Amino acid sequence: MMQQAEIHWSDNEKKVAEIALKKAYDQEVKALIEGVREKANLISLTEDVWQLHDFLSAKRHEIDGKYDDREPFLMYTLSRLVKDGLLALSDLAELEADKQAKISLLTRM
Amino acid sequence: MMQQAEIHWSDNEKKVAEIALKKAYDQEVKALIEGVREKANLISLTEDVWQLHDFLSAKRHEIDGKYDDREPFLMYTLSRLVKDGLLALSDLAELEADKQAKISLLTRM
Repeated sequence: MMQQAEIHWSDNEKKVAEIALKKAYDQEVKALIEGVREKANLISLTEDVWQLHDFLSAKRHEIDGKYDDREPFLMYTLSRLVKDGLLALSDLAELEADKQAKISLLTRM
Repeated sequence: MMQQAEIHWSDNEKKVAEIALKKAYDQEVKALIEGVREKANLISLTEDVWQLHDFLSAKRHEIDGKYDDREPFLMYTLSRLVKDGLLALSDLAELEADKQAKISLLTRM
């Protein structure tokens, strides 16, 4: 992970990031809930139950680590959400141009 | 767990135990699948998803350890399934009387 301790976030930028994270999180959770319902309705074998369990274990681990809002990790967190299609760069239009450029660059890494 | 290494199982008794274990297992898995479908359809919050995950983790762990068909553990395995309502003593009517009595005793422990 890149060293980003030197990046300064204004109060407004922190608010923009917070709103963006919440938007992405809500979207991811909504898709997860729909996915779980679908998978559950298709269960017919024991193996399907354990596959659902494995899926939830992986998702929980992934989501637990994904929404890190600590400032030194925020650029990385936001770029990953853009990369995953959970945020658009336009959601971050209120960040200063330099941050937007760096996030855009990170999404291509 | 009690020491049971001295108990002898005839071929027919092994077969009876095997059939009983399969019956209990199938019944437990059927109930589990129904339970997972119901829980999944009631999910509306993220917390509900993680509760389903916790439920599946616990069930998987429980079921993994529950159907131990190694001979030294068979009396214990069968008695637990009776205790849990997944088997009736009548499912074990073909076992020799002494085994049935011991299993019945174990279910009350």
